[in-house]
Formats: sequence, structure tokens, C-alpha cells
Amino acid sequence: MSVTAPRGFVATGGSAGIKAGKVPDVAVVATADGRAVPAAGVFTANLAAAAPVQVSRVHLAATAGAAAGVILTSGNANAATGEPGRSAAERLCVAVAGEIGSTAEEILVCQTGLIGIPFPIEHVLPELEPIVMARGGTGRDAANAARAIMTTDTVPKEAVVAGDGFTVGAMAKGAAMLAPNMATMLALCTTDAVVDAATLRQALREAVAASFNTMTVDGCTSTNDTVLVLASGHGSSPTPAALTAALTDACRSLAEQMVDDAEGATKVSHVHVRGAESDDAAHQAARKVAGSVLVQCSLFGEDPYWGRVVSELGSAGTLFDIDRVTVAYGGTVVCAAGVAVPHDEAAVAAHMAGRHIVLECDLGLGSGQAVVLGTDLSYGYIDENRTTS
Amino acid sequence: MSVTAPRGFVATGGSAGIKAGKVPDVAVVATADGRAVPAAGVFTANLAAAAPVQVSRVHLAATAGAAAGVILTSGNANAATGEPGRSAAERLCVAVAGEIGSTAEEILVCQTGLIGIPFPIEHVLPELEPIVMARGGTGRDAANAARAIMTTDTVPKEAVVAGDGFTVGAMAKGAAMLAPNMATMLALCTTDAVVDAATLRQALREAVAASFNTMTVDGCTSTNDTVLVLASGHGSSPTPAALTAALTDACRSLAEQMVDDAEGATKVSHVHVRGAESDDAAHQAARKVAGSVLVQCSLFGEDPYWGRVVSELGSAGTLFDIDRVTVAYGGTVVCAAGVAVPHDEAAVAAHMAGRHIVLECDLGLGSGQAVVLGTDLSYGYIDENRTTS
Repeated sequence: MSVTAPRGFVATGGSAGIKAGKVPDVAVVATADGRAVPAAGVFTANLAAAAPVQVSRVHLAATAGAAAGVILTSGNANAATGEPGRSAAERLCVAVAGEIGSTAEEILVCQTGLIGIPFPIEHVLPELEPIVMARGGTGRDAANAARAIMTTDTVPKEAVVAGDGFTVGAMAKGAAMLAPNMATMLALCTTDAVVDAATLRQALREAVAASFNTMTVDGCTSTNDTVLVLASGHGSSPTPAALTAALTDACRSLAEQMVDDAEGATKVSHVHVRGAESDDAAHQAARKVAGSVLVQCSLFGEDPYWGRVVSELGSAGTLFDIDRVTVAYGGTVVCAAGVAVPHDEAAVAAHMAGRHIVLECDLGLGSGQAVVLGTDLSYGYIDENRTTS
Repeated sequence: MSVTAPRGFVATGGSAGIKAGKVPDVAVVATADGRAVPAAGVFTANLAAAAPVQVSRVHLAATAGAAAGVILTSGNANAATGEPGRSAAERLCVAVAGEIGSTAEEILVCQTGLIGIPFPIEHVLPELEPIVMARGGTGRDAANAARAIMTTDTVPKEAVVAGDGFTVGAMAKGAAMLAPNMATMLALCTTDAVVDAATLRQALREAVAASFNTMTVDGCTSTNDTVLVLASGHGSSPTPAALTAALTDACRSLAEQMVDDAEGATKVSHVHVRGAESDDAAHQAARKVAGSVLVQCSLFGEDPYWGRVVSELGSAGTLFDIDRVTVAYGGTVVCAAGVAVPHDEAAVAAHMAGRHIVLECDLGLGSGQAVVLGTDLSYGYIDENRTTS
């Protein structure tokens, strides 16, 4: 069901010819009645923000946090495309607004794909009408939308979380450039909760910080990152904390699905840092370890080379005392007080052979802690990214 | 000749059994008469600094910038080895001091290799005497020393720069973890210039900033990075500027040799950023581009995907306006004012097929500029780093 699970939403997905070979590449999610509802967004921190990011920001500001629908396209990022790119993103909104009966400013737009290639707007516009007309409120409609936003993803990514009298649905795409401040990922959440735009915005920010921003694949921040949420108001009126919790659960599920589907990855790492001076310091240190290409190579090779982990902790820019650090793989301590300790090597080897590797680091300095999800670095990542063709 | 090219220095290299199979793993460079001379060092910023870094820092502080010799070992980093590691590094200095007739504090120590493995000091000490006894002032002696510090290097790295009445010689090792603040690299410079310790220290800092700190391979900062210089005083008394220039030339030569020999690299990138708000901003942006694994994958695939370059410039944390950016590969402009421009694709393809790729980015914002050397990311890098065995 995902984005159509909450009451009051419809979805659709189809092919508008952005990708070759009639592959689905356009999705639209809208309120069932075309009415604008409270909405919020979190966007990339990249200063080379793509046209759709620029347009969505302007629209959300103009409506003071309201939207009737979202159009999402894949295959062309419409980034580094100048004024023609902004015009194309705007025209996508105008076209969807015409179909569902809202204003263009009440439509948001997300795009993903290759950077720097002019968006084929003239080719796409005539294809939109039948796709939007086919929108519906079933699980299949939601699945069609989730499938249409995939790029290098191998599986669609959907999540549903049931709250007390309200529901959150969500879909996302993303398999690389996953770094601080999100990165080539799009996510759209819907909910039928009754909530005002300001509360919704704060809930989304907290959910993103606790989910998408706790993972890293390659440290690259995309031009197109966007997470949106629309609230139809057909359900109950949860407390802000209850809404935030449900949104966080949905976003965390999507984040885990993204890391699990990361380009070329053979391993998922769960880097726990404890004993840091603060939670922020723990997060910074965990991100340094999870994002290290040397650590990632060791994970690919199933080699518990904790020396690299200690080296990354020492250069993370946070408080560190090598004489206090403990490192464990899968619960087996391999380094204590900064030096090697005898341990069950067979247990570590068995843990490293699995798909999920749990790396625990205790800095012995305070009570700050954090977890960051990462991947290994494999031949497959290079293969996915060496050429665009 | 390298480190024995300046008057007043001797060198030696041999095997002390740190590495398996009688491979050279210990080098000593000292003043010919065992007398302490002005010396300076620049060390890693990693808070997990290895035992030899800790010991060398203490020695340089105790002597107020004087040294009679340096012992360098390869095969074991003596990092994350606790108090026994510090004791081992200290005992290496004591042993060399006994041979050349200086105090232990007048000996500096550099080590490189695997992290977290106890250093086999009892095994190594008896092997040192014949190696140090064999020291001499020929080019072969210097070459033996340069060869003994190699780890994953495929070739030894030496440089000689002739000044006006003085000479700078240098040797280095390093093929990965090359990042800001140096990283797994050791470099030792000698000179016969007449200079005091304070001037020598400032000259070394400037030379390191303009050479080793302008390259990146994997963004990792090592526990053992060290650059040292000793000045015998047998030559002329150059101006600080002349000494700095010669030291910079020597260090830059070594830096280029390191990037050229980087683990698994098939390409060397020269990322020029111009038009930045300041030189520092240009350096930061160039380092972000050169260090991006996505850009590195594109270089490996010989794909001029400038969209990734623009995306990295936009997330470098410096001032950026996509509508002003120009990107060129090998002098051929592929993006101007932030959008694709028609260009000679055959010329770009021919340039990308070469080993050296020149990537020029003009931000159009000011007069700041910088060059950072990098590499591509290939299967070979993963192979070198997936396991330690």
C-alpha cells in the first residue's frame, strides 16, 4: 500500500519516455480530492541544487507549507540545466495541477538521474495526462509509483507504519551518494494525521535526522535529495511526539532498505560508537568509520583489521584517547585499552562472513552514543559508477 | 644519491626481520660524524598517533630541534601498541645512538606498516648493529635506505634539488592513506644548508603545505605520518625563501612520485580550481573533487561525467554559484555557466585515455586558485586493501 495506505491519497506510475525502452519513469502522488493539505520538505544541502529542488522550495514557501500533489521523475536529474531546467520543472507542476485541479504552486517536484543533461520536457509533457488520469488508491497504484522512481535501485522501497488512529505511508529511491544530508535519494511520505504545517515540518526534520542522516555509502551529497510529507487530515490528531515516532519508523525502514540495496554492496555495516563526549561526537566518529574506504575494503575482504578503525576514530575530529578505546566485531572484543587482545578468531571470522557486520567502538570518554549504517566497498560499486552509459 | 647528496650525511638499509623473507625493512640516515644538527618535523594530526610519532615529538622538543640521525622501519607501524610500543620505539633510538655516538634523544624514529600488532623489538635489536655499521655516503647507501622503507610502494622514491651552494636530498614512502595532513607516508629530507632550527622548521612547514598536503588518494589520515629534515651545515647559508623553495621542490617531487605509485591507481588527476573566493576555498573545493569516489570511478572509466564534478563543488562547503561554473577536461570546456556546452568529444576522449587527467574548474567568483593531485579508484585499490594477509 505504502503511500496510499493513509486515507485520502492516490498514486500512479508510468512511462513518459525519459528512460529508454518504456521503463516506468514518472510517478504522481496526490490528495484524492485535489485539495491542498499541510506539507513539508527537507532538501539537499548541496549548493548545486537541481531545478526541482529549487522549484519545490519556492512552492512550499509560497503556500506556507501546503501541497495537493507531487510529481517524481527518474532517468534525468534535471540538475546543472540552468534556466531551461527550472522552466521544465515548473511546467511539470503546471501539467499535474491542470489534471488534478490545484494550482501549480500546490504541486511539488522531485527528479533523479543523470546530472547535466537537458530535461526533455517537450517529449514528456504529452505523455503525462494518461499517467495522471490512471491514478488510484490501491496498493498496486502505490507500487507502480514506487517502481517508477527507481534508478540503480534493484528493488522498490516502501514502508507503512500504523499509529493510533492514523497511518504513515512512504516510498523512496536511492542506492548511492548516500551521505550526510541525505544524498541522491528521494522519499515521499503520506499520512492521514490531522496536523498543521509547522508541526509537520518539525516532525519531518527529526525523522530525517534519525534515519536518512544516519547512513553513509560513499560520502557524496547529491544535487537532488528531497524528503517530502503530505498530511491529508482524514485520521486522528496525534501528539507531535507520536507523529514524529511514526514518521521516524517509516523513514528508518526506507533508510535500511536503501543501505541494503546500495550499489555493489555485499555487506551492511552497523557502526556503534559509545563512550563519546556527546551524541554528536559519537555520530561524527561513527560516520568517519563507516565512510572510510579503507574500512569498507576490509569489510569486503571480511578482514577484522581494527587498526584502521582506531586510525579513523583518531582522525574523526572528535575527542579521542587511544589508551581508552575498545573495538568489537559482532560482540567479540579484539582491541581493549588501545591494544590487541586475545580473542575467539573463529567467532569473528564467522561474524565477518555474514551480510550484516556489527562494529562496536567504546571511546571510554563519556556517555555519548550513535549508530551509523554503511556498506563495504566492492568491485560492483566501481562497475556501477565507472561510466554513465 | 638522494639523502646522501648533501654533504655530511650517511645512510644504510637492511633487513632486521620485521618483514618475512629477508626483505629490507630498516633504514638509518645520520650525520657522518654523529654530531647533532638542526632538525625539524611535521607529524600526523591523527589523535591515534603511533608510538614513533610520540617518541620523535618528545625528542625534538627535548633537544629544541636537533638530531644526529633517524631510524626508519617498515612492515609494522608500531601503532595501537600501547606502552610496550613506546618503549620499543625508544629502544630503537637507544640502539642507534649507541652505534653512532649520540644521545638517544638526538635520534628520531619513523615506522610504517600494519597497525595494532606488537612490534617485535627483541627480535629486531640484535639485527641493528651490522646494518648501522654498514652506513656510508654513496648513492647506493641512500638507495638502500629508500628501498628499506617501502611497504606497498612498487618503486622507491627519491629526490635531489640543487640550491645555490647547498643541496636538498629526500626520500619517502607512501602509496595510500594520502590525505590532508599527509597520511601513511614517511619522508626524510637532508640538506647541507647552514640554518637554525626555527628557520628550518618554518621552511619545512611551508614545503609540506605546498606538496604532500596538496594530494589525496583515499581521504584517510594515517597514525604514522612524518616528514623530517636534518641540516648538516656543511654548505652555504641560503635565505629562508631559497631554502623553502628547494625543500618544496624536493617534497613536491616525492608527492608526485607517491600519487604516481598510488595503490591500484591507473590515473593521476590534476584538479585545478580557479576563480574561488580565496586560495584556501579553492584548495578545499579541489580536494573535494579529487577525493570523491564517484569522480574517481569516472576517471577509472574514462568517462567525462562533469555533473559529478559540479555536484562535488556544490557540496564542498565553499562559496558556489552553479550559474557561473566552467569545467574543462584537458583544456576542452564541457560545461559553461553551469550547463553542458557542445565540445570536441574526441579530444576529451583522447585526453581521458591518458594516464594524467587535467580537470579544470573555474568558479567565476574571485581570484583564489589551487591544484590538488589525486588518482582514480580501481579494482586494484580494493585488492590492495581488502585483506592484510
